[in-house]
Amino acid sequence: MVLRFRYVELRLRHTFTIARGSRDVEPCVIVELEHDGIVGVGEAAPSDRYGENRTTVETFLRKIKLGDFSDPFELEDILAYLNTLEERNAAAKAAIDVALHDWIGKKTGLPLWKLMGLNKQKTPLTSFTIGIDELPAIEQKVREAEPYPILKIKVGTPRDEEIVKTIRRMTDKPIRVDANEGWKSREQARDKILWLEEQGVEFVEQPLPAADLEGTAWVREAVHVPLIADENVTTLESIPTLRNAFDGINIKLMKCGGLREAMRMIHTAKAFNMKIMLGCMIESSVAISAAAQLSPLADFADLDGNVLTTNDPYEGVKLVEGKLVLNDEPGLGVRKR
Amino acid sequence: MVLRFRYVELRLRHTFTIARGSRDVEPCVIVELEHDGIVGVGEAAPSDRYGENRTTVETFLRKIKLGDFSDPFELEDILAYLNTLEERNAAAKAAIDVALHDWIGKKTGLPLWKLMGLNKQKTPLTSFTIGIDELPAIEQKVREAEPYPILKIKVGTPRDEEIVKTIRRMTDKPIRVDANEGWKSREQARDKILWLEEQGVEFVEQPLPAADLEGTAWVREAVHVPLIADENVTTLESIPTLRNAFDGINIKLMKCGGLREAMRMIHTAKAFNMKIMLGCMIESSVAISAAAQLSPLADFADLDGNVLTTNDPYEGVKLVEGKLVLNDEPGLGVRKR
Repeated sequence: MVLRFRYVELRLRHTFTIARGSRDVEPCVIVELEHDGIVGVGEAAPSDRYGENRTTVETFLRKIKLGDFSDPFELEDILAYLNTLEERNAAAKAAIDVALHDWIGKKTGLPLWKLMGLNKQKTPLTSFTIGIDELPAIEQKVREAEPYPILKIKVGTPRDEEIVKTIRRMTDKPIRVDANEGWKSREQARDKILWLEEQGVEFVEQPLPAADLEGTAWVREAVHVPLIADENVTTLESIPTLRNAFDGINIKLMKCGGLREAMRMIHTAKAFNMKIMLGCMIESSVAISAAAQLSPLADFADLDGNVLTTNDPYEGVKLVEGKLVLNDEPGLGVRKR
Repeated sequence: MVLRFRYVELRLRHTFTIARGSRDVEPCVIVELEHDGIVGVGEAAPSDRYGENRTTVETFLRKIKLGDFSDPFELEDILAYLNTLEERNAAAKAAIDVALHDWIGKKTGLPLWKLMGLNKQKTPLTSFTIGIDELPAIEQKVREAEPYPILKIKVGTPRDEEIVKTIRRMTDKPIRVDANEGWKSREQARDKILWLEEQGVEFVEQPLPAADLEGTAWVREAVHVPLIADENVTTLESIPTLRNAFDGINIKLMKCGGLREAMRMIHTAKAFNMKIMLGCMIESSVAISAAAQLSPLADFADLDGNVLTTNDPYEGVKLVEGKLVLNDEPGLGVRKR
């Protein structure tokens, strides 16, 4: 098996601001894994929230020696080997996991959703994300989001109310809210959420810092809409700790290390009767198409990272009136633009 | 998709006695699912402990109409449909699940362990089960078990001590003990287990009735060997309730409804850091070979149901000095004898 990778700087359509900061570009490393004349494609979209960046991804990828493995079907062992190389580095590991899956799909001639026994008609609608911004820019983004039936709004600032009011004046689409750990206390989170409920918000993601699980459980008792864990949930083991604080989890390939771990997490969350959200970072169509393969199992999807960019090097899953539309191509179903 | 089934009465090498009763034969229904010129094979081995028998299995199978589905790749939807037909009936559902998996393996030309990304070298040793019996018969069974490196002993009678002493006089092999809910009180269970620990027992399965989870948690605090849930664990949703009472779970296809649910349970149990045991009923090589496909993910295997019979209509996974040996044939890798 031969591993190649290349850096791509994804450019954002608009400066993207969340509670933690602003960005105009985001890093992405495209991986190609070649074996037996077939090339599997993967992607790492590292997030500094989890200690990853272009350098950590490339350093990790250079450490990988696949000589002990005979082919990509040895998924369980290859992924276990990656975990012995170094802890964390979930985005770098996800790149390999996705490339292995793409290879297996291409080798068997089957799209991944089919290999996983899923029905591609059952993909959910994805939300379209509106970052924090000045009000005229927010209005502009709401107009651009016209084709998308669900909005996801980034909050966690002193201006949350005026942003939400501005959007609600323009549209009565379902709104989901992501605080990205941005509220300062349990009381503030409670008050914000009770107000957001009056605005018809569907759920709230990660109201408080991940370290404040006790505060989040307190907030959950005080509000009515579901709370979805994002920064609080990384891999499988984090799920059992969350059941008193959250109603669902946001699974992202770049947090958990790939499709195989994401599938494990989906099953585990279902054992707790927790809702499943599939989310993303700013990513190209490679990683978005990978996550979309699992989306028939999700209650909510937020897989719009590729449409927020202007130089996506691939195309794969499509959005038709906000619905994720998977194709019948083998593996991820992606090709270079 | 065309579904056929036929009844097979599996004959036992020895009268098989556990805490609940004795048997000389066990029912088994072999299912064949044909589509696109390929036949997938499955098996239901119903247990009266879970309200199933030949009649319930055949009645359930007759209700199944697969006309709405285009092929066996639609696993998720087909299995969801089975759950809408009737609750429970896990053995009947497992027969379909296994036949669908066998078909997919044959269609793709891949053994299931490979399709699941597993390494067939990593199968565990299986234990060999010794039912409750008179002492001379126990001695005879221990001699017959000579090729098997691990013994599983059925207890839960007033004669537990003399059975274990008889076996320990003959061999120092690792012994696992299964009480099948047979002990009468938490104090009795504690005393029995503390004594069994002195005999070098590796773990104890299901010491108390499934309804007495609180008592089991009390026993777990008082003893040192791991406690493994069997009758207490059926499907995915049962797992989160068990974490204080048990150290691991015994997953059986005939309790949970098939390979797909078993895989979900394995992942969920791992999220709790619980041990995974793969067990069986008295089954032919069809169902045993199905469970064995997952065994590289298990800590313990008790997959000897086929070798306890004298008229197994199939052959598949082999036992070599107690180790499960999977072959490279597509699907389950079983064929008629």
